[in-house]
Amino acid sequence: MAAGTIVAAIHRPLRETITNPDTEARLRALADEVVFNEGEAPWTPAELHARLNADVRAVITCWGSPRIDAAALDLAPNLEIVGHAAGSVRPYVTREVWGRGVRVTHAADVIAEAVAEYTIGAILVGLRGFVPRHAAVSAGQWKDPVGGTRPGGLLAGRRVGVVAASMVGRRVIPLLHAFTPDVALYDPHVDEAQAADMDVELLELDALLASSDVVTLHAPILPETRRMIGRRELALLTPGALLVNCARAWLVDQQAMAEALQAGRISAVLDVFDDEPTPDVSMFRGLPNVVMTPHVAGFTEETRPRQLAAVVDDVERHFSGHPLMYEVRREALDRMA
Amino acid sequence: MAAGTIVAAIHRPLRETITNPDTEARLRALADEVVFNEGEAPWTPAELHARLNADVRAVITCWGSPRIDAAALDLAPNLEIVGHAAGSVRPYVTREVWGRGVRVTHAADVIAEAVAEYTIGAILVGLRGFVPRHAAVSAGQWKDPVGGTRPGGLLAGRRVGVVAASMVGRRVIPLLHAFTPDVALYDPHVDEAQAADMDVELLELDALLASSDVVTLHAPILPETRRMIGRRELALLTPGALLVNCARAWLVDQQAMAEALQAGRISAVLDVFDDEPTPDVSMFRGLPNVVMTPHVAGFTEETRPRQLAAVVDDVERHFSGHPLMYEVRREALDRMA
Repeated sequence: MAAGTIVAAIHRPLRETITNPDTEARLRALADEVVFNEGEAPWTPAELHARLNADVRAVITCWGSPRIDAAALDLAPNLEIVGHAAGSVRPYVTREVWGRGVRVTHAADVIAEAVAEYTIGAILVGLRGFVPRHAAVSAGQWKDPVGGTRPGGLLAGRRVGVVAASMVGRRVIPLLHAFTPDVALYDPHVDEAQAADMDVELLELDALLASSDVVTLHAPILPETRRMIGRRELALLTPGALLVNCARAWLVDQQAMAEALQAGRISAVLDVFDDEPTPDVSMFRGLPNVVMTPHVAGFTEETRPRQLAAVVDDVERHFSGHPLMYEVRREALDRMA
Repeated sequence: MAAGTIVAAIHRPLRETITNPDTEARLRALADEVVFNEGEAPWTPAELHARLNADVRAVITCWGSPRIDAAALDLAPNLEIVGHAAGSVRPYVTREVWGRGVRVTHAADVIAEAVAEYTIGAILVGLRGFVPRHAAVSAGQWKDPVGGTRPGGLLAGRRVGVVAASMVGRRVIPLLHAFTPDVALYDPHVDEAQAADMDVELLELDALLASSDVVTLHAPILPETRRMIGRRELALLTPGALLVNCARAWLVDQQAMAEALQAGRISAVLDVFDDEPTPDVSMFRGLPNVVMTPHVAGFTEETRPRQLAAVVDDVERHFSGHPLMYEVRREALDRMA
């Protein structure tokens, strides 16, 4: 369809996990040439720049790819579209991309589906104690049939507070509705009419934290969301509340949360930590009210191969003149991860 | 409302976990006298029989209560209703109860709500590996960002096979529909029209086992369901299938299942075991593809106090001439736990 070159700046080992032969064939059909990073590691900016020239019409990125910035754009003056085959696109493009009329698309919604399911799993794991109970049964313990074992919590009738109607948040809400009618939302960019469409009660953050049995975080990483759940906000949570963070540790004051968990005042299911992939989880370790997973909320066998496919779909749409499905608009960037 | 006596044959420590002051007050208002078991242990049959007489209009039972059989019925000729404040009523009444025109009600639907939520949690726990991942992160491991960590599985698009549209099964199905459109059902008592109403594909058991990514068991304990998932049926499961049993170990050949799990051919989340509350779980212990919990699927802080309330509701309805909400009809007993 398009003449010219597509540069797929995704190093081979990663590419193999997010693609399938059909997707690669479709990508090859979109250009005279597709330049892949066949190396074991991501390209350096210089290695990317060496592949950019006036023939390049599209660049495909993923985790670890060099950023598409003014220097890259200068080398690829005919670049039309950047497809980021993962979720958070902000680290991989600068505002100059939109400034030069280059379109951006990404696979965030594909990943959001997996994160949303994981979020429901995390809530049920937190409410029903699968992790400590498995440990107990494995250790040869059983419950006392009358007393002695703490009961779980029912999701039906519990209030779940969703922080941000992001791509993930918007997918979490209807899943929650299957279990409980009482879903509250904090999102400064959502108005009452939109909240009514989502069948949620729109609350200020403090009111949401103070009235929810479960709080699940789906806000984007922005300067203003840094530690938005701080010591003061954590103190607003009701005793026994469950906090789920499958978004980013950035959103929560980790030390203050650790203290609330150590005190047994709240419980948490955490998929994200500061300093990944080498987080210091010592402050959470061994607490019976904490479940930790290694940033895998978006990681499923179905999701991975769809990541590149979603981006190739949109690159196909671009070159054939159809509207993109997953386009990232510059004005939306302020609200997304 | 009713004159006479109500015998509440639930020993005090258990009663305290399944009631609240309002429910007990409502129960007391239903009769001239309510005779409670204030002891620490369930009554023996003789201890129950000593409380039965011509004034007794209702008996309330729960786990551990003596069975209401011909001998008990002979002593309480004016008994009108038995309310079992738990799920499986079969061990607590004999057919003579219906034969003498005594009505039976139970709290199975209250418990079913909790079991259904737990089932979804179990499926997501099995698909997404919360238990082994928590263990890994707690042990200081993190995933390899590209390879090395097995991805989870998405529920969306997976086929879930539900074995039996029991009270629990009927509650699991709509929860599943929030995640995946592909729900199959095996239930010899359900016809195509009923299956269409539930929006499930009705399959024979073998076809369901051979085509489902997840199989969740909700069949009743009946002679014909004993080990209905035997060695032959387990061999029909697709490699990598997830088996969830929050019903009864009775349904599954435990040794054959253990062998399939030890071989890594399937995975399982098991809430039920032979020989509870002292099961031998050694054949499942330490397997990364098995999660075990101690028969807590129906055990939530909301469910417990509703158990007696549900039964008291129905006893109230009976004495005020209203239709019962949870009546157990004799002909239904053949299909229920």
